[in-house]
Amino acid sequence: MRIPRSHPRYASLMQRERLVRAWKAGIVVPEGLIAHGRGEAWDYLMGEGTSAPALVAERAAAAYLLAAHRPVISVNGNVAALNGRDVVRLAKAIPARIEVNLFHRSKDRVRKIVHLLESAGAKSVLGLRPNARIPGLDSKRALANREGIFGADVVLVPLEDGDRAEALVRMKKTVISVDLNPLSRTSQRATIPIVDELTRALRNIEKFVIELKSDPAEAARVRRAYRKDGNLRAVYSFLEWRIDRLRRGAGVRPAPRRKATKAGR
Amino acid sequence: MRIPRSHPRYASLMQRERLVRAWKAGIVVPEGLIAHGRGEAWDYLMGEGTSAPALVAERAAAAYLLAAHRPVISVNGNVAALNGRDVVRLAKAIPARIEVNLFHRSKDRVRKIVHLLESAGAKSVLGLRPNARIPGLDSKRALANREGIFGADVVLVPLEDGDRAEALVRMKKTVISVDLNPLSRTSQRATIPIVDELTRALRNIEKFVIELKSDPAEAARVRRAYRKDGNLRAVYSFLEWRIDRLRRGAGVRPAPRRKATKAGR
Repeated sequence: MRIPRSHPRYASLMQRERLVRAWKAGIVVPEGLIAHGRGEAWDYLMGEGTSAPALVAERAAAAYLLAAHRPVISVNGNVAALNGRDVVRLAKAIPARIEVNLFHRSKDRVRKIVHLLESAGAKSVLGLRPNARIPGLDSKRALANREGIFGADVVLVPLEDGDRAEALVRMKKTVISVDLNPLSRTSQRATIPIVDELTRALRNIEKFVIELKSDPAEAARVRRAYRKDGNLRAVYSFLEWRIDRLRRGAGVRPAPRRKATKAGR
Repeated sequence: MRIPRSHPRYASLMQRERLVRAWKAGIVVPEGLIAHGRGEAWDYLMGEGTSAPALVAERAAAAYLLAAHRPVISVNGNVAALNGRDVVRLAKAIPARIEVNLFHRSKDRVRKIVHLLESAGAKSVLGLRPNARIPGLDSKRALANREGIFGADVVLVPLEDGDRAEALVRMKKTVISVDLNPLSRTSQRATIPIVDELTRALRNIEKFVIELKSDPAEAARVRRAYRKDGNLRAVYSFLEWRIDRLRRGAGVRPAPRRKATKAGR
């Protein structure tokens, strides 16, 4: 299927095409396609643009990644398929190590993803020879590398599942998540939850990394100023405002309060 | 992967398994997996239960299907994979014809889906030999059958795309959609949009069909009483109430009004 650039949903359709291709190549699993669909629905709700509170979290993430002793970016199949290049650029800008970490792990998939990232310019990507276990996770999902996620102080986990995000927080790491669902366990548990689409999030973090690198005083101020609870509250307010706007856009007036309460129970 | 019945997300995980299996069998396309993910996100937002306004729409749908001269149920890959049996039961209860109608159409897929429905008990499923075209749609997506969708007065289109729902409404058909996104073009354009998960929607409609069959006066009253705009308004109110509840469940207090407005821009 050829998609014309003028199509109003060009970017979104291209992402789908890329995922389907990566799935054919054995990089993405079917569950990854379903997860991407959930992300699409959330992005639509969020207006397919970075919200003000997401931008604040992205700047805080950049500041924490710069201050880290051992920053690591965790990459799964969807992340590699959709944003391999962006991950590599960000890893170079910080600099941070990259570790491939799969929910549906097979050695073959890890190898393919390592190869994909290395051909996008990454050096010595971790993941093929795990030598440690994250406590509290079952067998395969616990596998990690001492040089990578296991030994990291700050971990960026895009599109992570709740269990693993939680396990990393229990290990006292600073966990930066990227997840469009502000209510997910990942967003709830992460130290710095970023509620934004992955491409936008990675590019914004990279931009802030470059900016804050030359201004350590400002980076320290950004770290001190970040408040997770207040930030998530602002995300919720944004979501409510968006849904109200979507409803108006659809030409639907709000139901009278009394009726609304009745219908809502 | 074996999923224990006690898993809090058992039903949802089983649906995914079934879809992935159907995709391996050539019944579901990768785009169908992504679309399912969008539905999952909406269902989560809607609380994974039938809302009061959805129930009202489902009862109206039953009343309209019973009053139809030529009621037809349209079936695509996802619908067949997830709810083949439910569709067949509903078609028998009304009774209505079934037509396979695919967005990503291939003769082979139509054949497989017809076979799946017939082994679930359906008789003479349409779709393999289209003999008409729905005006305003491009080539393959316009294909339809005079005995089925093309000649129907009432069409149930679960998980339909906006273009086709709109084209059927232009043909002056009563279009009943099942779509968890209340803001989608399908929900906006359908005559009776049902904002509910497909399994629940099909079973509720069947239940109401059986109830109203023996009470034509009540069925007529239900048809007269249904108002699309008011019903969709109630769905939006429900959605807003749900998001507020999810936020509270996540332990997030609303941001002060003034701040909320600022963050929301």
